Amino acid sequence: MAVKENPRPGGRSARVQASVHKAVREQLAEMSRAEVTIPLIAARAGVTPSTIYRRWGDLQALLADVAVERLRPDMQPVDAGSGQADLQAWAEQYAEEMSSGPGREMIRDVLAAQAGANACKCCEYTRQQIVVIADRAKARGGAFPDVDLVMDQLVAPIMYRILFGDVPEASRVRDLVARVMNTAG
Amino acid sequence: MAVKENPRPGGRSARVQASVHKAVREQLAEMSRAEVTIPLIAARAGVTPSTIYRRWGDLQALLADVAVERLRPDMQPVDAGSGQADLQAWAEQYAEEMSSGPGREMIRDVLAAQAGANACKCCEYTRQQIVVIADRAKARGGAFPDVDLVMDQLVAPIMYRILFGDVPEASRVRDLVARVMNTAG
Repeated sequence: MAVKENPRPGGRSARVQASVHKAVREQLAEMSRAEVTIPLIAARAGVTPSTIYRRWGDLQALLADVAVERLRPDMQPVDAGSGQADLQAWAEQYAEEMSSGPGREMIRDVLAAQAGANACKCCEYTRQQIVVIADRAKARGGAFPDVDLVMDQLVAPIMYRILFGDVPEASRVRDLVARVMNTAG
Repeated sequence: MAVKENPRPGGRSARVQASVHKAVREQLAEMSRAEVTIPLIAARAGVTPSTIYRRWGDLQALLADVAVERLRPDMQPVDAGSGQADLQAWAEQYAEEMSSGPGREMIRDVLAAQAGANACKCCEYTRQQIVVIADRAKARGGAFPDVDLVMDQLVAPIMYRILFGDVPEASRVRDLVARVMNTAG
């Protein structure tokens, strides 16, 4: 995979990336995924197709790169007053966003790329949100379960249901939150 | 999605399906996924491309259909003497098979198809294996957790790690089994 990480902000590489990402988002808003091609994206971004091939490798890798950027959380988890309430609010929003049409499409793009780097990044974004909630709970003096346990027992079941079954119901999400919070004693 | 379920065994529809599935498996064994096309598969299966388009809709749906057939378990879970031992043996094998190269490719094919029917079927196969283990444990007079809880707390974390992270380690799988068995009291 030829995706360059962290280009120098404002540098030529960063500007190419921003322009290509923007072109992909615009194309996806205007046409179905099956119609999107690298030449179309290149024309819109004002770069040559070979610039895109050199940097991203193929269309699927580029779509995954754009999807993972959109999956990056744009806010801190809401402060709802306690660890359990924070986790509850976060989990409800996560389940809702990820099971929406655009959410499912982004997950599909991230998972469809052969290299797993973007999927890991996506998982790491989620983990960081849980870390914020855990740190806040501890700062308040409350007990909070191990972050890996929250990933295994709350995040994983929500994502599994979205991918393999149906929408995770709100009541099920509440049960999962209560169950994992219980382990913190 | 135009996938017809359960064609009459031995009927024309079943023969077409068997022949096309066989052609896909053979093509995938001989060339990379990116080179496989519907015309190639049709020629090998001795049907017209339009037969395939009419029945499966597109290549991705056909690949998903073949992948889910390959993911169908071909054996009962091993009887290891107790509910916990059965679940342990099953989970280790599941984690190993699904995180292998061919396992990951099959999961990717199933999840890449737009319609979720095949993903559900795949999840249902897994669930049936847990039901067998649960029934056996109860017949022995042992306690066994609710099957949905096993899906949420054991199967989902294994699959999440395979999709978004890395290989689930054997020690982690053991911990997950012990934890969910504990809930059965």
